[in-house]
Amino acid sequence: MRFPKFSISALALGFGLLAQPAFADEVGVHGVFILNSLLFLIGGFLVMFMAAGFCMLEAGLVRAKNTTTQLTKNIALFSIAAIGYYLIGYNLMYPLGSWAVDGVFSALFPAIAVMEPVGVAAEAADDLSYASTASDYFFQLMFCAATASIVSGAVAERIKLWPFLIFTFILTAFIYPLQASWKWGGGFLDAAGFLDFAGSSVVHSVGGWAALAGVLILGPRLGKYKDGRVIPMPGANLPLATLGTFILWMGWFGFNGGSQLAMGTIGDVADVSRIFANTNMAAAAGSVVALVLTQALYGKVDLTMVLNGALAGLVSITAEPLTPSLGMAMLIGGVGGAIVVFTVPLLDKLKIDDVVGAIPVHLIAGIWGTFAVVLTNSDASIGAQLYGIVVIGIFTFVISGIFWFILAQIMGIRVSEEEEMVGLDNSELGMDSYPEFIRQG
Amino acid sequence: MRFPKFSISALALGFGLLAQPAFADEVGVHGVFILNSLLFLIGGFLVMFMAAGFCMLEAGLVRAKNTTTQLTKNIALFSIAAIGYYLIGYNLMYPLGSWAVDGVFSALFPAIAVMEPVGVAAEAADDLSYASTASDYFFQLMFCAATASIVSGAVAERIKLWPFLIFTFILTAFIYPLQASWKWGGGFLDAAGFLDFAGSSVVHSVGGWAALAGVLILGPRLGKYKDGRVIPMPGANLPLATLGTFILWMGWFGFNGGSQLAMGTIGDVADVSRIFANTNMAAAAGSVVALVLTQALYGKVDLTMVLNGALAGLVSITAEPLTPSLGMAMLIGGVGGAIVVFTVPLLDKLKIDDVVGAIPVHLIAGIWGTFAVVLTNSDASIGAQLYGIVVIGIFTFVISGIFWFILAQIMGIRVSEEEEMVGLDNSELGMDSYPEFIRQG
Amino acid sequence: MRFPKFSISALALGFGLLAQPAFADEVGVHGVFILNSLLFLIGGFLVMFMAAGFCMLEAGLVRAKNTTTQLTKNIALFSIAAIGYYLIGYNLMYPLGSWAVDGVFSALFPAIAVMEPVGVAAEAADDLSYASTASDYFFQLMFCAATASIVSGAVAERIKLWPFLIFTFILTAFIYPLQASWKWGGGFLDAAGFLDFAGSSVVHSVGGWAALAGVLILGPRLGKYKDGRVIPMPGANLPLATLGTFILWMGWFGFNGGSQLAMGTIGDVADVSRIFANTNMAAAAGSVVALVLTQALYGKVDLTMVLNGALAGLVSITAEPLTPSLGMAMLIGGVGGAIVVFTVPLLDKLKIDDVVGAIPVHLIAGIWGTFAVVLTNSDASIGAQLYGIVVIGIFTFVISGIFWFILAQIMGIRVSEEEEMVGLDNSELGMDSYPEFIRQG
Repeated sequence: MRFPKFSISALALGFGLLAQPAFADEVGVHGVFILNSLLFLIGGFLVMFMAAGFCMLEAGLVRAKNTTTQLTKNIALFSIAAIGYYLIGYNLMYPLGSWAVDGVFSALFPAIAVMEPVGVAAEAADDLSYASTASDYFFQLMFCAATASIVSGAVAERIKLWPFLIFTFILTAFIYPLQASWKWGGGFLDAAGFLDFAGSSVVHSVGGWAALAGVLILGPRLGKYKDGRVIPMPGANLPLATLGTFILWMGWFGFNGGSQLAMGTIGDVADVSRIFANTNMAAAAGSVVALVLTQALYGKVDLTMVLNGALAGLVSITAEPLTPSLGMAMLIGGVGGAIVVFTVPLLDKLKIDDVVGAIPVHLIAGIWGTFAVVLTNSDASIGAQLYGIVVIGIFTFVISGIFWFILAQIMGIRVSEEEEMVGLDNSELGMDSYPEFIRQG
Repeated sequence: MRFPKFSISALALGFGLLAQPAFADEVGVHGVFILNSLLFLIGGFLVMFMAAGFCMLEAGLVRAKNTTTQLTKNIALFSIAAIGYYLIGYNLMYPLGSWAVDGVFSALFPAIAVMEPVGVAAEAADDLSYASTASDYFFQLMFCAATASIVSGAVAERIKLWPFLIFTFILTAFIYPLQASWKWGGGFLDAAGFLDFAGSSVVHSVGGWAALAGVLILGPRLGKYKDGRVIPMPGANLPLATLGTFILWMGWFGFNGGSQLAMGTIGDVADVSRIFANTNMAAAAGSVVALVLTQALYGKVDLTMVLNGALAGLVSITAEPLTPSLGMAMLIGGVGGAIVVFTVPLLDKLKIDDVVGAIPVHLIAGIWGTFAVVLTNSDASIGAQLYGIVVIGIFTFVISGIFWFILAQIMGIRVSEEEEMVGLDNSELGMDSYPEFIRQG
Repeated sequence: MRFPKFSISALALGFGLLAQPAFADEVGVHGVFILNSLLFLIGGFLVMFMAAGFCMLEAGLVRAKNTTTQLTKNIALFSIAAIGYYLIGYNLMYPLGSWAVDGVFSALFPAIAVMEPVGVAAEAADDLSYASTASDYFFQLMFCAATASIVSGAVAERIKLWPFLIFTFILTAFIYPLQASWKWGGGFLDAAGFLDFAGSSVVHSVGGWAALAGVLILGPRLGKYKDGRVIPMPGANLPLATLGTFILWMGWFGFNGGSQLAMGTIGDVADVSRIFANTNMAAAAGSVVALVLTQALYGKVDLTMVLNGALAGLVSITAEPLTPSLGMAMLIGGVGGAIVVFTVPLLDKLKIDDVVGAIPVHLIAGIWGTFAVVLTNSDASIGAQLYGIVVIGIFTFVISGIFWFILAQIMGIRVSEEEEMVGLDNSELGMDSYPEFIRQG
């Protein structure tokens, strides 16, 4: 629109064009830095709000007698993640030198490493071509916290509060950042060509593996599997679960869009836009596939499946939200929705009691999404994707299992049968979520 | 603040000023593109979250026995809108050539048309002076989905799930985009001077007309009108309804502000700011007028009227959120609040059973808002506004009515009396929203 | 990254560098204006959403019989604040000349003063180095409304609706803006070196002082203090209270981050990023400290303390979210969490009945946060901070007390004993929040 202005004047042609064409139209180093930082800040608060989404989803899907405990876990895990990632995790994930010993070492002085000084001058900024360190830290922290949020839903309704919170610290200070460094810290998985744009594996499957290890060691809730039958234990408040899903859906634009890590050029902002559109499409497809499949299979639409279908669509597109066309995003997300419908009952058959469906949504759809990168990104190879999935999976599952096991030995991770029957709100916290509403049973 | 820098140096005066003054201060072509796209992305996720707002509003205002169904409809309609608008709607609304046949034709290959390639170069971007196509698509999609959200509340508590979802597809793939193309696709209403900044008519009245057609064909809920009296059927969860209203209020900043379609100049960002301030003022005024009027008329403040008053204020300012002063915005929104207080009982007198008040809020206040453009925008004429209102109204009401009628004939759109009595959650979905809370009756 | 482009060409060196280095990299006057305005718009909608956060927090912490009233108060107070701040407050806070008489005078024509004209030209903008007036107005309004939101929780469950709303108008039109002008309008507290970055005192303590005056004049709820014991009156819906806390937490990024008032330079955006990171850290620390302390003191984690601990952490960091390191932010927020745990029972001992804990969170932690500025900001002096705290405190407490007293004399501010027993929803509004759920007692 403004090109004509240049070409009119001969002088501008003579001098101006030397300095300007394509250049002066571009945003400039400072503008790029500002816009990239802004992307992290917007993406960061959106992903932060996903903590509320997980909290509402889980509070809606547990029974009323365990709701206060679930709420407490969710706000506490987010807070603990913020501290664990600050004290140790961030420096472990992005060490100055190599990721191992030095990382731990520099972690002893994390406050020094983390933020640029107040009112930093352009010359003093860490990397003018990227973004402010604090904005990057803020954004990355939220991914770490999301990983912990995934776990809490699966192990709900029978895990003790404090062992869960201790595990959260271990997960967010050590397990998540270590494996994330292998990909996003420029580690060996990155070198091996493993691709995971926003974390179908690095975030979601890690949450899922940690949850699976916990669920296996915990065992199912009392009375969940009886005489070969699966006893439904319906959630107490489905509007909350639906609200949580919508919040997660919105937050995911920050999750995937922010993972472009840049917004200061035409190409980058157009990519962020593609990611927004694809992310929405995958969620919608996952939801619709679950809608249609539950109608077809059971003769009735199942709202919790639809909600989880949308979330599985989101997880599925997370490893590669950029390269797919909208049609491919629809396909990738739709498969995610199908995964939920088919694997939720499968887990029940295996007597793996995952209260909110976190394992189908985050682990299984996460694996699917990681493989699906090869469908649209020519840099991806199925071998490298498999390698990343397996390495991250074995590491997270084994280490998580060890820590769950140690916690179980030291302090016990499961409440007593009587406490479970009464409900954790009464036995652990002495505070009812809905003290005035008279309840069944 | 930086002007002095220019004037100091004679050299800069000699050479620099030729290329720079006023120009170099401006943001540059790339910056405009980035900022416009960012406006769409932020506006888009805010409007997306309005789906959660509608969902909570409606879930709070229906009775407990129909809540799961209402939640299911809301997440499903948003998902279906995303697919319908992708497959057909977007290309129908913004066809490459003329809006009719070509549009349908190009819709056969929508994925090709929609997004710019990954990492698009500046030279390859569709229109450097506008925004990335995917950001525009993302933003426009959310408006289409909002239209569908409006319908679900009005027809609640007695409509079958699947006919509703099929209608949603028709509305979002065909009805909404077609009429929207007449104004926003540069069609004949635009040419006729019809003004509708963010969609008092194009979005809200369309949702309202489609709802009205559905409500008339469905008929009122069982027992709603009895012996000349209106039987109150209070919503089950007013905190949810209030939350939904606040979410919608926040989302509206994206709805109206994003409709400026540009943020890359001083004038544009100041306009977006005006729109934010006016939008908030209109909502506040609608709320306060409903507060005062219900106190004056009934001796008691009515919360649901206050909530709908705020929403009606928002709808009223939507056709022209830019040109009014804050005082005029207060007036325009306040009239919206009054409309709600006076037309909700009027509809009941006509035995038009609109469960959540969608018709007063979105249709009647939408018409008021469309006329109100003439109060502050000198480009508007009452004739052109009337023309647009009537054309959009007749088209949407008639076509919607035809499709509702066809659906009623083919598959039935209303549940049986017994199912309605038992509640749709039990009869259609077999899933209770609040399974543990013992309920009245 | 693009620096090499400059240095290659001798011509660019000769002419280009004269005009460009450091300058051309900077964003330019227009860019700064746009980015600053954008910061206000984003910050503004986030702070606006805090109204929903307060509403949910309070709706969750009151008993079911008073929930509709609490919802009504929250949406009404936000609406009234919007009008009060528009009609009088904004011009009182930022008068054109001196803040006193002229301010009131220019308030008679507020619409004239407030917004720049539609499509303002760069030359006509009020202050090119700042931001659009409407964006500033929008942002500032939300702070005024937040102050009013703080009050409603403390005086809940026994105050009459209309006196509360009249007080809200007085608070938002006069009390808040007047004292805010002393600091943020460039008044005598600002001149005295009093520092309050985003309003630990100017917003939070003001809400707290106004609430305290109201609570003292109202007296405690019936039956709250009996025979020297404190009778627990647990909130009816803890998921809502938790959701409210998460919403407030998210909104606080806008509250503190937006208070940087600028985002158009490297230094400013890095500062906003620091603020986001510190704000999150303080909230997390407040939450964890309350978690640990309630476990240690009572043998049980107390969810409502954890929620209020997070909020107190947020209030504590609000006076200075920029200069602390992350470690100091953790300390400052953590002390806030401890304040809640120790002062909530203290207030009960004094028979000061604050339903949601607004006084510990906003007033006491607000005072702590205002003092804590001296820990990290070398411009702060303990004397100036004390001066500001005392001046704002005395002014707000006395004036609020006078108005509460006048309202009590003229119309009464407390419902009758019978009405309080039945619940305000029934006696004042005739509308139940959860009409279908059978309740205890």
